[in-house]
Amino acid sequence: MEYPSKLIEEAVNQISKLPGIGKKTALRLVLHLIKERPESTTALSEALTNLRSQIRFCKHCFNISDHEVCSICTSHRRERSIVCVVEDTRDVMAIENTSQYTGLYHVLGGVISPVNGIGPADLTIEALIERLNTASSEIKEVILALSPTMEGDTTAFYINKRIKDLPVKVSTIARGVPVGGDLEYADEITLGRSITGRTLFN
Amino acid sequence: MEYPSKLIEEAVNQISKLPGIGKKTALRLVLHLIKERPESTTALSEALTNLRSQIRFCKHCFNISDHEVCSICTSHRRERSIVCVVEDTRDVMAIENTSQYTGLYHVLGGVISPVNGIGPADLTIEALIERLNTASSEIKEVILALSPTMEGDTTAFYINKRIKDLPVKVSTIARGVPVGGDLEYADEITLGRSITGRTLFN
Repeated sequence: MEYPSKLIEEAVNQISKLPGIGKKTALRLVLHLIKERPESTTALSEALTNLRSQIRFCKHCFNISDHEVCSICTSHRRERSIVCVVEDTRDVMAIENTSQYTGLYHVLGGVISPVNGIGPADLTIEALIERLNTASSEIKEVILALSPTMEGDTTAFYINKRIKDLPVKVSTIARGVPVGGDLEYADEITLGRSITGRTLFN
Repeated sequence: MEYPSKLIEEAVNQISKLPGIGKKTALRLVLHLIKERPESTTALSEALTNLRSQIRFCKHCFNISDHEVCSICTSHRRERSIVCVVEDTRDVMAIENTSQYTGLYHVLGGVISPVNGIGPADLTIEALIERLNTASSEIKEVILALSPTMEGDTTAFYINKRIKDLPVKVSTIARGVPVGGDLEYADEITLGRSITGRTLFN
């Protein structure tokens, strides 16, 4: 595509590097910004610069945080005996939204994916093991809350192998038919797992 | 939604102001930027700042341009007797891609839309009339290439009313069944217009 201006071309190229945004969408966004007041572009641009230059990660759980230790790790209301291992910050937010979990987290920063060149060393798995091995550790249970995908399962399997000899219980979140979902629309694998992983009706 | 960091919250708020991007997509983009090298965020942020602060519009046709007069208006290869009136730069790019048009353009910067508070004074219609009225004007035909929507039709009707007494021919792009489209899938209005607007098979 030929752009009428080098500025447009550069902005379109940069925006279309973002996941899920192609050249056409990028051009639409660029033309939107040109129509809006200059201040809104300045605000957007500053928010991105500040984000990238000032962002910090909690030194315990590696969740995104404004401080050295995140608000969950410092909270006195959280149970310190359970750690929930998740892929990224979005999962922490999703689990927090359920209001069903009161323990701590450990953010891996991704999942093992040989196709994308991500191995165990690229994740915070060693830090998790260190966290469990610390003399002062109060952790009694590790919940593996990873996505039910090939990569998620591989990562869960790897972590379990590494920590199964430590004096902690390792559990994984339940897989089964989604609440409110019709049984006939569930795929075979999910339905199969929901049967093998059935729980007592007490 | 509760964000783990004020920086994330601000970036998500700014990005989700863009058209077609909600909070969830914005969060996905933000987490992507955090995973990437800091330079890619800097490049994106700079491209946006440069775009908004340095962007210029051609003083003749109001198309986006790197110079005072755009490359189409300065080109010696373009016919100076025809002006194609379009809504925005994307339409110029779309028409240029067809390689079927060799005249000049006039970019309105929008269409008349009372619902969105856009009236004729917000567009470059007066500048178009001035351009046609200039003593040195070589323009003999004005093509109205606006979208076949309520707003586009209203704008075309308004412009035609304003310039119909000037010594220029006013035409509009053909409406009909799209090339390669099956006749039975065309909607009634399009098909109806393609019949009333039929051309001689010569």
